[in-house]
Amino acid sequence: MNPTDLDQLGARILQMADQLAAHSDQPDALTVAYLTPAHRAVAAGLQRWMREAGMQMHIDAVGNVVGRYAAADPTAPVLMTGSHFDTVRNGGKYDGRLGILLPIAVVSHLHARGERLPCHLEVVGFAEEEGLRFRSSFLASSALAGQFDAQLLDRADADGVPLRDAMRAAGLPATLESITALARDPQRLAGFIEVHIEQGPVLLERGLPLGVVTSIAGSLRMVATVTGVAGHAGTTPMAMRKDAAAAAAEMLLAIERRCSQAPTLVGTVGMLGVPNGATNVIPGRCEFSIDIRAGDDPTRDAAVSDVIAACEAIAAQRGVALELQRTMRVPCAPCAPALMDLLAQCVARAGVAPYRLPSGAGHDAMMIQRLTEVCMLFVRCGNGGISHNPLETMTAADAQLAAQVFLDFIRHVPGTPR
Amino acid sequence: MNPTDLDQLGARILQMADQLAAHSDQPDALTVAYLTPAHRAVAAGLQRWMREAGMQMHIDAVGNVVGRYAAADPTAPVLMTGSHFDTVRNGGKYDGRLGILLPIAVVSHLHARGERLPCHLEVVGFAEEEGLRFRSSFLASSALAGQFDAQLLDRADADGVPLRDAMRAAGLPATLESITALARDPQRLAGFIEVHIEQGPVLLERGLPLGVVTSIAGSLRMVATVTGVAGHAGTTPMAMRKDAAAAAAEMLLAIERRCSQAPTLVGTVGMLGVPNGATNVIPGRCEFSIDIRAGDDPTRDAAVSDVIAACEAIAAQRGVALELQRTMRVPCAPCAPALMDLLAQCVARAGVAPYRLPSGAGHDAMMIQRLTEVCMLFVRCGNGGISHNPLETMTAADAQLAAQVFLDFIRHVPGTPR
Repeated sequence: MNPTDLDQLGARILQMADQLAAHSDQPDALTVAYLTPAHRAVAAGLQRWMREAGMQMHIDAVGNVVGRYAAADPTAPVLMTGSHFDTVRNGGKYDGRLGILLPIAVVSHLHARGERLPCHLEVVGFAEEEGLRFRSSFLASSALAGQFDAQLLDRADADGVPLRDAMRAAGLPATLESITALARDPQRLAGFIEVHIEQGPVLLERGLPLGVVTSIAGSLRMVATVTGVAGHAGTTPMAMRKDAAAAAAEMLLAIERRCSQAPTLVGTVGMLGVPNGATNVIPGRCEFSIDIRAGDDPTRDAAVSDVIAACEAIAAQRGVALELQRTMRVPCAPCAPALMDLLAQCVARAGVAPYRLPSGAGHDAMMIQRLTEVCMLFVRCGNGGISHNPLETMTAADAQLAAQVFLDFIRHVPGTPR
Repeated sequence: MNPTDLDQLGARILQMADQLAAHSDQPDALTVAYLTPAHRAVAAGLQRWMREAGMQMHIDAVGNVVGRYAAADPTAPVLMTGSHFDTVRNGGKYDGRLGILLPIAVVSHLHARGERLPCHLEVVGFAEEEGLRFRSSFLASSALAGQFDAQLLDRADADGVPLRDAMRAAGLPATLESITALARDPQRLAGFIEVHIEQGPVLLERGLPLGVVTSIAGSLRMVATVTGVAGHAGTTPMAMRKDAAAAAAEMLLAIERRCSQAPTLVGTVGMLGVPNGATNVIPGRCEFSIDIRAGDDPTRDAAVSDVIAACEAIAAQRGVALELQRTMRVPCAPCAPALMDLLAQCVARAGVAPYRLPSGAGHDAMMIQRLTEVCMLFVRCGNGGISHNPLETMTAADAQLAAQVFLDFIRHVPGTPR
């Protein structure tokens, strides 16, 4: 048995993921923040495997590990693929990394066969997506998309180390010029495909190993503050209360109700609290967060409008004040119909019903979509769909199927720029 | 004009309250904890005024300031009155103290006239009711009721000072014997009346200066913990969630709805929170407090049963776990019908419609009710009914009316033990 044999790819992918998980910033958890020693050790592992797979590779100015598997025709466009190799704190070993390791494994198979593709294939190990160390999510993919935020270079981590210094210490040039030069020319690109673990329960519940992503939802986030009148829990009759927590509870249920009314829509109140609450005091203040996402912006924005109207009506009816502050609004990134359709055909050829679903989580493809057409292949997540957690898991059989679909896809992407 | 003139009593009461408010444990707030220097200064002021009003006075073994205005008949029973002179942190100047200062003012008027009453009148400035320093609510009245908790003597304050040492430092004997000896003989008592600021908005909303309390509600308190499943706010469809905060919100509204179904019933969720909540994480856990009170125990307990059933049904329907822990259950203390009726007659004679209402807050009368029959006169609270707050306020006119009603009452309480 050879690890480059087609039927060994799934096992090989999981084995590589295990090996990378040995590197961590923390002894008892998988935490790999941007440009730490563990991060550089992971990058070194990726470099080695890319070389072994027959790719030309380099580390770019933001620390991305970029491997290129050249097409026979030097004038062919570049099909990009990849995902991130940094992690959240105490994360899982497949989040992001699957989308780097799977292409490496597939290229090793092509290389062993001596097979060339209609496009140059560029596998990018994105150095930074989670934003753990510098609150700089999508830093790596933003550089390739020509959207790098120059102010980030001066931002300091928790120890006061500016990003610029952290880059220098990692042997990167740490100049804005070197980073802006990373922006790719869309005229040379055939598109981008990202393979990623689903990080949710949908495929698991449907009994499907794979899914074709239709769009990557953008978050709209708000912080809500309800101000009522604090009062004595014993002496204030129910009809005379202006209870901030009761108003917030009604708003929370209105959000839940409205966000259950469209298939791709989700709404979450993740933070909720009565500051300095006491058992015998009617809450005078209650604060909560709102996160609303959908497969497309009109669906999301209609829900947001309705949620705001509902919360304001509840506040007015209860005689409490409501302050809503919008803290984030990221547009949805739709996947390209032609790439999606091709991916769905490949899934079907692998014997799997091509199920389409939106991605509620953000991914590097979301940033690359500003540069070129994108698509995403989701792989089933075990353990109830848990991710960003050491319990995150997937099977070698699912990775195997995903590798076959990916191979089929890269063989058939037209060698013309998008 | 003489401060003992009948029509000057209201002004005199407010003046005395202002003078007591000069003593505080904190420079910018009215905070008087048990046995602090400020507390002892307040006790000294009360002593002086009791003596000036013609009363025999002493400090008892728990620091109560006790004044006695003797009846002409030495064999007459004792009518007790009084309230507490300690405060909450950053409290109001009438809470508790009104119920000591008003009787002193009324006695000064009787003394100036040379008028004697059918009962000995004992005015008690209770040294401790709020429990601020030693978490020992009702310590002072429990001693008189023969219900002192001996373990309290070893309880330490935030600085590690045991109650026993604090008592010694204040010149008290600090022995259990001296405290248990304070228990009164119910055979010698004609009852107890407590005058107190309402601490709520009911009288204010009804445009009434006075109210006759029907019972003192006892709290039933619970701590609720809802455990759902934490998940990614973007990737978990609404129908697959087990959101602990959404379940808690539905429970909160069920509590509010059920506790709005009886006139004297109140239910409050004062503490509410998602521990370590994050905007993009579905809450896996939510904690909240429940406080339910009513004018009578059957009304309260029926509501508690329904609330528990409703919360359990919500938990079952949403697939989350619910843990309810009962942390307090104090029985209601009903006021004595005969004393209530007499008080209502006195209110009517003062030209005020005798409005009856329960007390949702606890008072010393609640503890004394274990010893003898009690009644309570509520005085209207200004500023929307706010109390336990520096904004707590009342008018001299209302204090004046209350003094007249109190005078009428103590003249007519039968000189026979209850």
